[in-house]
Amino acid sequence: MLRTHTCGELRLSNKNQIITLSGWVQKTRNLGGMTFIDLRDRFGITQLAFNLDWDKTLCEKARTLGREFVLQITGEVIERESKNLTNPTGEIEIKVTQLTILNSASTPPFTIEDETDGGDELRMKYRYLDLRRTVVRKNLELRHRMAIETRNYLDKQQFLEVETPVLIKSTPEGARDFVVPSRMNQGQFYALPQSPQTFKQLLMVSGFDRYYQIVKCFRDEDLRADRQPEFTQIDCEMSFVEQEDILQTFEGLTKHLFKTVKGIDISTLPRMTYSDAMKFYGNDKPDTRFEMKLVDIKHLTIGKNFKVFDDAELVVAICAKGAAEYTRKQLDELTEWVKRPQIGATGLVYARVNVDGTIKSSVDKFYSEEDLKKWAIACNATAGDLILILAGKEDKTRKAMSELRLEMGTKLGLRDKNNYSSLWVVDFPLLEWNEGDPNLPESLRGRWVAKHHPFTSPKPEDIELLKTNPGAVRANAYDIVINGVEVGGGSIRIYNKDLQALMFETLGFTKEEAQHQFGFLMNAFEFGAPPHGGIAFGFDRLCSLFGGAESIRDFIAFPKNNSGRDMMIDAPSLINDEQLNELSISLKS
Amino acid sequence: MLRTHTCGELRLSNKNQIITLSGWVQKTRNLGGMTFIDLRDRFGITQLAFNLDWDKTLCEKARTLGREFVLQITGEVIERESKNLTNPTGEIEIKVTQLTILNSASTPPFTIEDETDGGDELRMKYRYLDLRRTVVRKNLELRHRMAIETRNYLDKQQFLEVETPVLIKSTPEGARDFVVPSRMNQGQFYALPQSPQTFKQLLMVSGFDRYYQIVKCFRDEDLRADRQPEFTQIDCEMSFVEQEDILQTFEGLTKHLFKTVKGIDISTLPRMTYSDAMKFYGNDKPDTRFEMKLVDIKHLTIGKNFKVFDDAELVVAICAKGAAEYTRKQLDELTEWVKRPQIGATGLVYARVNVDGTIKSSVDKFYSEEDLKKWAIACNATAGDLILILAGKEDKTRKAMSELRLEMGTKLGLRDKNNYSSLWVVDFPLLEWNEGDPNLPESLRGRWVAKHHPFTSPKPEDIELLKTNPGAVRANAYDIVINGVEVGGGSIRIYNKDLQALMFETLGFTKEEAQHQFGFLMNAFEFGAPPHGGIAFGFDRLCSLFGGAESIRDFIAFPKNNSGRDMMIDAPSLINDEQLNELSISLKS
Repeated sequence: MLRTHTCGELRLSNKNQIITLSGWVQKTRNLGGMTFIDLRDRFGITQLAFNLDWDKTLCEKARTLGREFVLQITGEVIERESKNLTNPTGEIEIKVTQLTILNSASTPPFTIEDETDGGDELRMKYRYLDLRRTVVRKNLELRHRMAIETRNYLDKQQFLEVETPVLIKSTPEGARDFVVPSRMNQGQFYALPQSPQTFKQLLMVSGFDRYYQIVKCFRDEDLRADRQPEFTQIDCEMSFVEQEDILQTFEGLTKHLFKTVKGIDISTLPRMTYSDAMKFYGNDKPDTRFEMKLVDIKHLTIGKNFKVFDDAELVVAICAKGAAEYTRKQLDELTEWVKRPQIGATGLVYARVNVDGTIKSSVDKFYSEEDLKKWAIACNATAGDLILILAGKEDKTRKAMSELRLEMGTKLGLRDKNNYSSLWVVDFPLLEWNEGDPNLPESLRGRWVAKHHPFTSPKPEDIELLKTNPGAVRANAYDIVINGVEVGGGSIRIYNKDLQALMFETLGFTKEEAQHQFGFLMNAFEFGAPPHGGIAFGFDRLCSLFGGAESIRDFIAFPKNNSGRDMMIDAPSLINDEQLNELSISLKS
Repeated sequence: MLRTHTCGELRLSNKNQIITLSGWVQKTRNLGGMTFIDLRDRFGITQLAFNLDWDKTLCEKARTLGREFVLQITGEVIERESKNLTNPTGEIEIKVTQLTILNSASTPPFTIEDETDGGDELRMKYRYLDLRRTVVRKNLELRHRMAIETRNYLDKQQFLEVETPVLIKSTPEGARDFVVPSRMNQGQFYALPQSPQTFKQLLMVSGFDRYYQIVKCFRDEDLRADRQPEFTQIDCEMSFVEQEDILQTFEGLTKHLFKTVKGIDISTLPRMTYSDAMKFYGNDKPDTRFEMKLVDIKHLTIGKNFKVFDDAELVVAICAKGAAEYTRKQLDELTEWVKRPQIGATGLVYARVNVDGTIKSSVDKFYSEEDLKKWAIACNATAGDLILILAGKEDKTRKAMSELRLEMGTKLGLRDKNNYSSLWVVDFPLLEWNEGDPNLPESLRGRWVAKHHPFTSPKPEDIELLKTNPGAVRANAYDIVINGVEVGGGSIRIYNKDLQALMFETLGFTKEEAQHQFGFLMNAFEFGAPPHGGIAFGFDRLCSLFGGAESIRDFIAFPKNNSGRDMMIDAPSLINDEQLNELSISLKS
């Protein structure tokens, strides 16, 4: 090794030892006849000391070193005169006797500091320099730790990690599949998996009993800020289980991760039905770090000639505790905020519960203080609270109120990143009506689609409804939600061939289509499929949540930008005609 | 859970307990009024007992169950009358009181037994049934254990697992790249990585210090029996190291795996130079489970008017210990064997050292017993040994002799799969002359190519030779070889921009080509690259070696066949015009 110790290792107990370090120049300071260099590696920073009096040549050489030069130094560990107790190595420094420049460095295009002066584009292009910043590297160290602890837990629970193939089969419904032309089978294509769903179910048919994999998945879709064309899942499946077993097992994983990675003991995860989540939070992934539940007050508002409320399908309120002192200006801003197209409300009604108990609202013309008191009671609002009300179409208004609730939570400081609130959302509907996703082929619009996926089992007591009222059928499906982020979801699967056929029929597949696309799975079900179910966690998002960050991008070593482009290596790119010819494909002009 | 215990768990100590098991019907036997069922899951087999006298209906139901039916049973653990001590659960059986058929099963197309009656094609098509066979599942359990122990070791050595991207950039030299058309960047393609080489080097530039990843890699090439288009590597890289550090660290990993997975203590790995490996074994991955080294005897054969030897560049012998009793028929067969096109020798000369010390050869016409004795001494052959000799062009003959040596090792039982012999092969040549691989584009034929890859560092003392005698330059490159299989290889990398430029020049790249293809890596070297090096292990092959198997296929859950085809899901396959249109590509007819 080109070192005896790392830059994070030396302490006062190493005093007088002759050591060798290697690392990067973080910073150089000249103080009179002395020069100090902060030498950095992954493990920390150690101060190097040079003195014109000790060794003039060496000290002058040290003064020529630029930022990010790579050095190997040998010297003696000495006690610092002015100690820096915020740095674990801050009690010592190295009196350098030998200095080798292992590599020089051009000046980086941005500073390698926690707070850098580099913009997003520049940092993406020079990602290898951005990764030198301690804050970014710590994210990836966290990710490593999360993966190790995930494997430790699942291994102890007798899960087997099995690698499923990356080159699989495209399905006509796989509009978002990346495809891969085959040279050996010309004119034919592999697809990259959007998830290993069918393979993990086949492993259950194989009797593998408990499977997991931390696995890359792929989706060729227009990217939102927080999506990547390749992403990583913790993918799991278990046999001979019921929903309760899956919830217990993966609640265990969640607790294990919080305990070992964050040092946090979390208690039993509450469970909320999908319909309660929609009713009380307007959202199937409620942020339960704070209360502020949605309250339907339509029945308290009718018949007072306020047309907006009278005409509305839904009148819904939240109570912002302690926000009665919001100024007119602040309330106007909130009104503007809810009227933005992303939220889409037509207006905002408020009612203040003053300290003296009186209530003042923006609709005093229509409602008496007596009326308003009823609202306050319904919303559990007391002196000092602010009631905010939206009205309109049911779905849209509930969704808008969910956004407003989150916004108020943020404004009132109720969404601390270091405070974690986790829960299970259960009893999802099996199906949802698809009006016509413009991304889907024509033939697939206006029909029932699987909310989770077509292998999800309906609740046994709801199977009868499949033929009469598909929208009312509940699934044995569940999501795990932390701080308003869906970090994982799964279901108990159908393992009976007839029920699977009925499901495909409900989804509008002909027998031939079902056989063509999922034949190998349905055939497998002929040979003794066990009851089984599973879950998949979005690993990138789980890591960013544990890291207290909003975006997943800094928890991925080499992420792509919003156009699916790797700015550093400049991919995707053109390929030459020879390659196209070999693959027997050509570009359309 | 649909069970209280697994089928591998119950012992005599559980006697009288009421338990529930779930699993598959392995076998049914009727003995008079009794019926016995072997119930199987991943964890083992437990015998179920039914009796017409105990419960007629239940026993009759049990008699209707076919192979591979999925059952849930409840009953009492009782002591067996005739114990089967070869099965861990063989002292007990279950007196069944409740039986639920969880799923029925059609008769499988082959028997689910260790020795199956299914052919390769059938088993590939019904891979999910093949995976039910204990021998196949054990291979994948071994693979899981290997991965866990690899991570344990590397984690303790402070390596960070970092995921590198799967959607990367194609290079013109990447004739074997799988490419992926991008929908968002029409006309442009990603490539799937043949290895994460440049990314791991960039991580070193980033100061990650120690990186590893168990990672899928891809190569679109004509497949030999033991190659797969997607394969898995243990990929590693370290900073501030010299070759010795890498060898020590990964010798440590190898020892750890043998110890924890196989319970075998292996001693320090010997090291052999590439030139010694070629000289003594005719092979850069020598099988050192047995000696039988190649001995050059040209100087002992000349001037005796045997034209074949006199004209040969190389006359090379091996000594097959104790094989003097080989019959004429066996020797004729060996001669036919070496003359097969795959081996390509023109003939085989032998000399027997008889028990009485006399020597008899197939070239007695030309050589006296005195001559032959000199051969015997050179080959270290004593009474009872057989000397085998090939002659011809240097490279081809050495290669043929290597094959013959392995064949004789096999015939003489010297290649026991449970006996492991590991070593490092070091000092590989940096470059090799490529006459014109027909797979390479025209412009790349007849030139020096990197033996390892273009980032491999020459030995500092040989750098001067790069300009004058490139073929003589040795690399800081090394392979780890176990039982004649190259399980891993790596090198110390170039980290100096000028040396990297000289290397590209030697390889015939123009500056522009080098910049276009590897610009992001060469640019990265401008900003302070540390000395670094690494290694990659072929994980599929390592697992098959630990599993004592010849082929990697049964250590991969869902392998592809020799045409790169997944027989189970029938991929690759045609995709529809809509998908092609979306990607702006078309098929050439």
